[in-house]
Amino acid sequence: MPHRELSTGLFADLYEITMAQAYRQSGTTAEATFSLFFRSYPPDRAYFVYAGLEDVLEYLEHFCFSEADIDYLRSTGQFAEDFVDFLGDLRFTGSVRAMQEGTLFFINEPVIEVTAPIIEAQFVETFLVNRINLQTILATKASRVVHAARGKTVVDFAARRTHGIEAANALARASYMVGFAGTSNVLAGGMSGIPTFGTMAHSFVTSFEHEEEAFRAYADSFPDASTFLVDTYDSIEGARRAAKVAKEMLQKGHRLRAIRLDSGDLGELAREARRVLDEEGMDYVHIFASGGLDEFEVDSLLRGGAPIDGFGVGTRVGVSADAPWTDCAYKLVEYDGRPVLKLSPDKQTLPGPKQVYRLRDSEGFFLRDVIACTSEAGPYADATPLLEYVMRRGKRIAAGPPLAALREHFDTQFRGLSSDHKRLRAPSHYDVDISEELTRLQARVVGELRARGDVF
Amino acid sequence: MPHRELSTGLFADLYEITMAQAYRQSGTTAEATFSLFFRSYPPDRAYFVYAGLEDVLEYLEHFCFSEADIDYLRSTGQFAEDFVDFLGDLRFTGSVRAMQEGTLFFINEPVIEVTAPIIEAQFVETFLVNRINLQTILATKASRVVHAARGKTVVDFAARRTHGIEAANALARASYMVGFAGTSNVLAGGMSGIPTFGTMAHSFVTSFEHEEEAFRAYADSFPDASTFLVDTYDSIEGARRAAKVAKEMLQKGHRLRAIRLDSGDLGELAREARRVLDEEGMDYVHIFASGGLDEFEVDSLLRGGAPIDGFGVGTRVGVSADAPWTDCAYKLVEYDGRPVLKLSPDKQTLPGPKQVYRLRDSEGFFLRDVIACTSEAGPYADATPLLEYVMRRGKRIAAGPPLAALREHFDTQFRGLSSDHKRLRAPSHYDVDISEELTRLQARVVGELRARGDVF
Repeated sequence: MPHRELSTGLFADLYEITMAQAYRQSGTTAEATFSLFFRSYPPDRAYFVYAGLEDVLEYLEHFCFSEADIDYLRSTGQFAEDFVDFLGDLRFTGSVRAMQEGTLFFINEPVIEVTAPIIEAQFVETFLVNRINLQTILATKASRVVHAARGKTVVDFAARRTHGIEAANALARASYMVGFAGTSNVLAGGMSGIPTFGTMAHSFVTSFEHEEEAFRAYADSFPDASTFLVDTYDSIEGARRAAKVAKEMLQKGHRLRAIRLDSGDLGELAREARRVLDEEGMDYVHIFASGGLDEFEVDSLLRGGAPIDGFGVGTRVGVSADAPWTDCAYKLVEYDGRPVLKLSPDKQTLPGPKQVYRLRDSEGFFLRDVIACTSEAGPYADATPLLEYVMRRGKRIAAGPPLAALREHFDTQFRGLSSDHKRLRAPSHYDVDISEELTRLQARVVGELRARGDVF
Repeated sequence: MPHRELSTGLFADLYEITMAQAYRQSGTTAEATFSLFFRSYPPDRAYFVYAGLEDVLEYLEHFCFSEADIDYLRSTGQFAEDFVDFLGDLRFTGSVRAMQEGTLFFINEPVIEVTAPIIEAQFVETFLVNRINLQTILATKASRVVHAARGKTVVDFAARRTHGIEAANALARASYMVGFAGTSNVLAGGMSGIPTFGTMAHSFVTSFEHEEEAFRAYADSFPDASTFLVDTYDSIEGARRAAKVAKEMLQKGHRLRAIRLDSGDLGELAREARRVLDEEGMDYVHIFASGGLDEFEVDSLLRGGAPIDGFGVGTRVGVSADAPWTDCAYKLVEYDGRPVLKLSPDKQTLPGPKQVYRLRDSEGFFLRDVIACTSEAGPYADATPLLEYVMRRGKRIAAGPPLAALREHFDTQFRGLSSDHKRLRAPSHYDVDISEELTRLQARVVGELRARGDVF
């Protein structure tokens, strides 16, 4: 029977709940630390942009089950009665150390570490991985488009193609953080305080008997904020008609902002349309391009000298089409003061709570990172520690920085990374070292597992 | 400034709102019909499974803006005051014809047609495309896994890797509709009435000093519903320990359900683990496999004879990794009784409201589909029309069928499609014809556009 009124408190894999019962019934309830990190780079990536922390902290601070959630869990008959009661009172009481959103990071580096009684720290796994994975994927993809656009305007047009509204809103925020000018998504614009952009659809043009009429109707409604979509029938003829209507607008004291090309050979059409507009003395009318664009297309158009002033990027960016997933993991690294790891093939983890240090040269360029134990600040006194306390005893230490500050933080970070690591194809990998102490700790834990026969 | 309290009524591309104002101010307010269809197949696809209608009808029936939405729109200063007032009263008053969820469909076939005053019909574009695109992508991907699994159990394990919670819940529902046994996602399980499945995480195992202790603790808590994850240190040694604990369970009258393999060469490990279990007389313990699985991996494991009883599929299915997007479009096909189309390169549309007829042979196998005008039922009297009225004057005609009925509907549909079109690689395309009348109509509309100079 469907229970439609459940809360996101229940967004967990079933095993989080069954393990919680088993932890509780076996008395395995000591404090644990979990690390969230990315195991490998997707194709053509050599960095990630960290995003999702704000949502995670909001979730942890308000973590609880609703009465409907508890009723549902009870109705399944899968759990012990006293355990379900226990869940009713469960809150997140732990601490969180994390990087700031907008920080660039690299494989194996923990971006967030959660320390709490193991039931709590384990329970939040699914939510944390989901949010950080998604928002990091989107922020990383969007940062590549900004890089490819060489300072030209980029706008998020992906609302219809993202995997849900939640993903659309996450994309709008993440892409603005990494330098997009704004989004077409009105809900996200309002929710995150991001500029919104819009032009017109082909259906607007086809609903009028003549293309010119459509342009005039739009210009009448938005005399100083019009972009005409010119490719409904024929892009260059559309550009001519746009110029004609723009002249009429000019006589009334208004300037057409831009035309939009949305199909065909965008580079060639942009050149022709530019000529058409310039011949009419309309060098002030911008050319905006959209339609199947991603960082590779934007790069190729601009390399080819296409006179395009702005790009609307949708589908391929909205789903990070060439890298829609990552190998992001949330692993137990310490239980009751005992460092732990797993040894599954290709999935070995680094034990214990950690810090990530970033070493820079005198001009601020990143030299290398070191993943270290939290106890060994000494050797890295000149480096920047990237993980900071953001939550203690279940409460945020401070409100998250405004999006504008994260945008600035990202920008500074991105300038610090050498362009070799930002190449769109086959970028070179940045150096991430494991500290000596952490290397020794890992060897010690593996040795102990061997000694008691858990590894062969 | 962020406005966090906005409603999904505002989930629209800005141009939906600016066009609405221009439509209204220019008196372009007659009835329009929009068609939603998919222009092309993603790689290795030759059919789609339609999903998302339930959400769409729910949205249309309750379509409105909250006070906060209206305040936000007013605060942007982009819109005319009387237009913002008008939006405050806007509801969806139109009619909807659609296929039933779970129906197989093919490129260019409208899956939903919306007829309403153009402002309403245009406004809902972003939401409709987003929901139907996403859910159709996920249902289609999941159906391929069910096909590859040849009747073995398949469970959705993707909650942490989908693009958001909304996508996770959509996946759980869509994958159950096409034959998955259930999901690990508790929220989705509760919301849609789907069976939930869970095992244990590596962190559960590593939180105990010895692997066996972890197994025992879990079995104590779930004596008749335990699946042991055996690959934390060494899969085969883990299987031996699982067998040891399973013997202890048996002495207390309980049976271990399964072991789970999650890394390494799953086929080889399954064979070895099967031997280990069988030698201990535990042929009743199932082997469950997970870790990077999709339809291709499942197919290859079963072709290789791997003794695997069930599959947990996550990441690659959760984001439809090989086809995370489609070329799905929502286009105006008729305005004020006048059939319309667009001619952009490679994006030409079919004019007018349509019906899709499915022709079958005497055994119920699909022969071919015909896309026709709504007016020409005559020639297809023996065929099944796939689009039916589901909403009139803004109200649903009936509640949506329960998920179990959609699951059955899908199953019947899937059996009707020849296996050539279901091949995992390079499937052959199914015949979709355009009716003579629709062909004539398209030629006529193009001719009229040419005659008045809109096309060259």
